[in-house]
Parts: sequence; structure tokens; C-alpha cells
Amino acid sequence: MIRPPADVGTPADQIDTPALVVDLDVYEKNLDRMAGHVRGRPVRLRPHAKTHKCPVVALHQIARGAVGVCCQKVSEAEAMVYGGVRNVLVTNEIVGAPKLARLAALARQAEVGVCVDDAANVRQLDAAAAAFGVRLPVLVEINVGANRCGVEPGESAVALAREVAAAGHLRFAGLQAYQGRAQHIYDLAKRREAIEAAIDRVRETVTALGRAGLPCETVTGAGTGTYQFEAASGVYTELQAGSYPFMDADYRRVEGLEFENSLFVVATVMSRPTVDRAVVDAGLKALSVDAGMPTVHGRPDLEFQRAADEHGVVLVRPGGAAVRLGDRLFLVPGHCDPTVNLYDWYVGIRGGRVEALWPITARGALL
Amino acid sequence: MIRPPADVGTPADQIDTPALVVDLDVYEKNLDRMAGHVRGRPVRLRPHAKTHKCPVVALHQIARGAVGVCCQKVSEAEAMVYGGVRNVLVTNEIVGAPKLARLAALARQAEVGVCVDDAANVRQLDAAAAAFGVRLPVLVEINVGANRCGVEPGESAVALAREVAAAGHLRFAGLQAYQGRAQHIYDLAKRREAIEAAIDRVRETVTALGRAGLPCETVTGAGTGTYQFEAASGVYTELQAGSYPFMDADYRRVEGLEFENSLFVVATVMSRPTVDRAVVDAGLKALSVDAGMPTVHGRPDLEFQRAADEHGVVLVRPGGAAVRLGDRLFLVPGHCDPTVNLYDWYVGIRGGRVEALWPITARGALL
Repeated sequence: MIRPPADVGTPADQIDTPALVVDLDVYEKNLDRMAGHVRGRPVRLRPHAKTHKCPVVALHQIARGAVGVCCQKVSEAEAMVYGGVRNVLVTNEIVGAPKLARLAALARQAEVGVCVDDAANVRQLDAAAAAFGVRLPVLVEINVGANRCGVEPGESAVALAREVAAAGHLRFAGLQAYQGRAQHIYDLAKRREAIEAAIDRVRETVTALGRAGLPCETVTGAGTGTYQFEAASGVYTELQAGSYPFMDADYRRVEGLEFENSLFVVATVMSRPTVDRAVVDAGLKALSVDAGMPTVHGRPDLEFQRAADEHGVVLVRPGGAAVRLGDRLFLVPGHCDPTVNLYDWYVGIRGGRVEALWPITARGALL
Repeated sequence: MIRPPADVGTPADQIDTPALVVDLDVYEKNLDRMAGHVRGRPVRLRPHAKTHKCPVVALHQIARGAVGVCCQKVSEAEAMVYGGVRNVLVTNEIVGAPKLARLAALARQAEVGVCVDDAANVRQLDAAAAAFGVRLPVLVEINVGANRCGVEPGESAVALAREVAAAGHLRFAGLQAYQGRAQHIYDLAKRREAIEAAIDRVRETVTALGRAGLPCETVTGAGTGTYQFEAASGVYTELQAGSYPFMDADYRRVEGLEFENSLFVVATVMSRPTVDRAVVDAGLKALSVDAGMPTVHGRPDLEFQRAADEHGVVLVRPGGAAVRLGDRLFLVPGHCDPTVNLYDWYVGIRGGRVEALWPITARGALL
């Protein structure tokens, strides 16, 4: 029901604002760079679709070699499968009969895997899979330092893997081992240290599972901040990086990443009450501020100071250039994932005009 | 395209999660309480629709005496007018030809007012109104201490009001004077002090305008945190409170407010790795954390510690009751407005079952 802020062919400087704009050249370069990094290594790329929520982007990733995508929600997985993706891993625990039924039903349409960290949940999942006549690949999630979901590494994981292997409609497929809290450690050495600790836990668990006769076909994890370390580990088989096509202001602060910002919230100055203060038409409903305020692309003389529901207050730093009513600013959101989730359309630009409008099909897919 | 998480008649404990749930008894009590507060006073209520983004709620407010609603965006105003609201004030500056055309066109369908703080914008607005053959009521926005939009009080406001009055297709209708930064000052005396300062600036400007032969038919402002003060000022004629139907965790920390929480994000425990840690299925895409983490309604023994994209980590305080997989928690969002903007449906409950599903028509209305 939400109209797109432009049409294909619209000059880029006439896109209505606020709009979620993708610089297609930079975006494609980011996709190519990641594909090149993975090529020839014993790991596959399974990018996280929670970032982009868009089957168009997923298919671009798959065309460059990705084996499929990850999702966090069953409804995201439905949007991906119905949008043409043939292989989806839900990197999350799914609880409750309605969602379990939808997950099992979806596995009749495409290859669909899921994670567990609880024995009762394994039994519920098995019952749902039986009801739809499917055999679901299931990964045991282990806690590798993020202290979120997941059983502890080692024997707890082996015990749960045995439950999965014993379930008639499930197949033990390996380990989910994502260290989410390491992704945004800015310092390269400290980030590597956090991931080395995670890798030790994974290796210990894979060994224990092997001793128990439960080989891990898949060990999956990693994000845009750390994928180089997991790729080199020799134990991870899949990388789940999600933010690399777009990047954001916080990931740009992370040392040693080779991707560039392709995603912008384009905003218009709708008030300029003083020479050093401008107000743009993008606030909390146009940008997620959970990882800090956006930066202003190409304008280091401007500081996005604070956001209200529909206003962003921008300060001109001493000596900065003037800002006028109607000026357009390219804002780099602090955190791309929850920012994308505020929009219904990507506006893809190249050569100064709109080349693509991609619907964000899984926007708001919470169930 | 997003399915509702329940049907009318669904037992409340079977609503799929995360869901945006309204306790209809508490919601109606909040509406009645505000209507009662305004009744018999020389002020009218014009609630802010940026909070609820739903014509159903707007019509409930109007049925209890509100003169219409406010909006921040032209697209929000469109959603309200097309949903049956006859009187809308856009409490914001509107910049750019496409939006100005839509605003002027909408004024052919209903009473639509707008704010200005710039002389060039007055001329653009006049041209758009001329093109659609309408005469728009226009309020001059003044800065009463929030340092966001608005000209300075006094002579700057008079000069801009003269421009409005001289424009052939505009009508000078009064002042927009909203002190947004005062709303969440928790301490009652300090909050009153901030608003008294704002009221002084408004009174000075109204007097200067009167001397210039420009009487203010409308002086509008105020929010849920301060409306009592503006209502008693003798100078404000309209109150723009928005959050009072729902409230949120941050407004509950504001001393002296008589409204109760009616809005909840209902979430399910989808992982419980340790006795003192549970993970729910509601994170940054289900709750805005810009004003802090949600509280857990009726469970002071639980602390919502942190949010990731789709996960919320909940800690059991020492001595707290056990949390089990599948348990449902009623979360009170830190900030209601950007949280509502994440959902497509309100699920209204009463007597333990779903009584209403209201579409959030202006969700994502950024243009």
C-alpha cells in the first residue's frame, strides 16, 4: 500500500524523500568482492537475508555462488522461497505449533533447515515434520560466546544432537555457531581473539560429536565483521554474512573490512532555522539509531546530531559549508538491518537515474 | 501483504508472536480520561496521529470530541483523510514540489492545514495552493525551546506571518508551538518550568501579532507529558497529545501522568539456555529501543537486557520466578510511536480474546 518514492527512469535528484537508495555499482562490487573471497575455499556462502529481506537481492547472491540464504523467521523464509530461493536455513529456534506447521509445510516447497537448543523443541519439530511428511535438516545451536541462544559446547551439544538423530522426521545436519557479539568489535586483533575462542569451542564440539558417531556435515556461522576468520578456520563450512552488500555507519568503524557503503537514506532539508542547524525529513521512522546516529555521506562538515520521530537535526560544524532548504543529504544509517525493515522499496540508482525498484517483500515479517 | 497474527475470536493466549496488542478496556479508559480533561475548557483536542497511524483510532478520538488530528507527513494525512478524518493539520514544514502538490490536492477533499518557518517555502506553498484552487490555512511554527524547526518568537514570527497573510492562496491561521523536548522531563516541577518558558514565548508572539493586525485563531502544541500546562495557559487553543491512548515505558517514568499502558508487544520465549536467561522472539524489528529497553508487564522479576535484530535477551533477577520455553511475555515498548510503525496490525483484546484487528494504514508513510 506504500507508494515507491520514484519511478524507473526518475533522475536521482528527483527521488522523493526519505527514500532507501542503493548505489548499484557499489552494491554489485560488494557482492563480487565477497564471492571472490569465498571462491576456491572449502567454505560456502549462505548470506543472511534478515539484512535485505528481498528475494531479488538473494537471487543476486545465489547467481554469484551462494548456496542459499539464512533467515531468522519462518515468514522471512516463506518470502524467500516464494520469491524463488530454493535453499533456506532458519538460523533460529522456532517455537509454537502455528510456526512449526508453517516451517514443515515450507519444507515441501524447498530445502529448509532449522536450529534447535532444547530437547522438548526437538520433539515438537519432529511431530510437525511428521504431520507434513518431510524430513527436516536440523542444526544444534551452540553458545560460542554471545550468551544468547544455544546449548553449551561439548557434551550438552552431543546430547541434543543424539535427540535430533533419534527423531524419525529430523536429520542431524551439524552446528549453528554464530558469535554475534564479535561482529562489531572495531579493533581487528580483539575481534580475531573473540572468534578464535569461538572456533576452539566449535572444534571441541565437532570432535566430541565425531567420537559419538554424529559427523557434522555443516558448521555454519560468521558475519560481515568476522567471516575472514571463520573462513580460514578449517572447521566452518558455511558463512552467514549479511551486511556486506550494503554496509552501514557502524560496520564502517570496524577495522579491516573491504566493503563500501552502497545503502543510503536520502533525506531533504525541510527547515533551516539557523546557519548552523538544519532539519531533515528523516528521523526514527526512517533510520534505526540503535547503533548510533547516521553519518552524512561525503559531508564530514555535517553532524547528524539527534533524531525525533520524523525529524533529524543536522549541525554544521565550524567552518562547514552552508546548507539550504531543499538540499538533499545521503545519510548512511547506523545499522542497516532494522533500517531496511522500515521501507517497502529499494530504489536502485546508477548513472544518475533510477534503474530498479525492488520490493522489500519480507519487510515486517515477524512471525 | 503481512498476515495478521490472529483472527477475531482467537483466544488471547493463542495470538501468534510477536504481535502488537491493545488492551481495549485500558485504551478506551485513556481516551475517555483525556476527553474528560479537555471538556469544558477553552482548548480543543487535536491528537497526533503520528503515534497510532490508524484512522480507526483517529475516529475513536473524534467521536469523543477531538476536532481532528495532526500528522507529520503528507502521506499520513492522506491515510487519515481517505480513512474518514475530515480535519487534519500537518504540524510540519512540507518541502518539494511533489509533496506540496499532494498537500494542496488533499485540501480539496478535507480541511488540511500546514506549518511554515521559511519565506521561500511560503511562496512555494502559495503556488501549489493556486494550482489546485484551494486556500490553505497556514500556521507559523515558532521555536519554543526544542531547537528543532521554527522561527524565533516575536518579530521573526510576525514577519513570516505577514508573508503568509499576503499570499493569495494562503490564510494565516495562527501558531505552531510544540516543545517536544519537555515531554519526557520526568520531574514534574522541571517539566512545568520548561513549558512555562515556552508559554511566555508564545504569549509574547501572540501579542506582537495582534499589534500587527494578525490575530491568532489557533495556537497549537503540547504533548502527553505537558498538555495539562498548555491547557491551563489561556493562550493555547489546541492540544496535540499523541501517546496518551497507548503510553509506553518511558512515558510511565514521567511523573504526574494519569494514563495507563494499553499497548504491548507480546513475545514468546523461544530459547531458555540457562535458568536465569531467556530469549524472546522480539528484538529491534519488533520494538524501538531509542528510548530504552521495554519493561516486562506484571513481571518486575524480569529484565529485558538487550535486543538484537530478532532476539530479546531477558534476565531473571535474583529470586525471580522461572521462565519456560513457550512462555508469553507482555512487553511495554520504550517508545510507542516508532514501535507502532513496525507493525501492520493492531490486535485489540478484551475479556481474553481478540475483538478487533485494525490495519495500521499509515505504517511506513514517510513521504
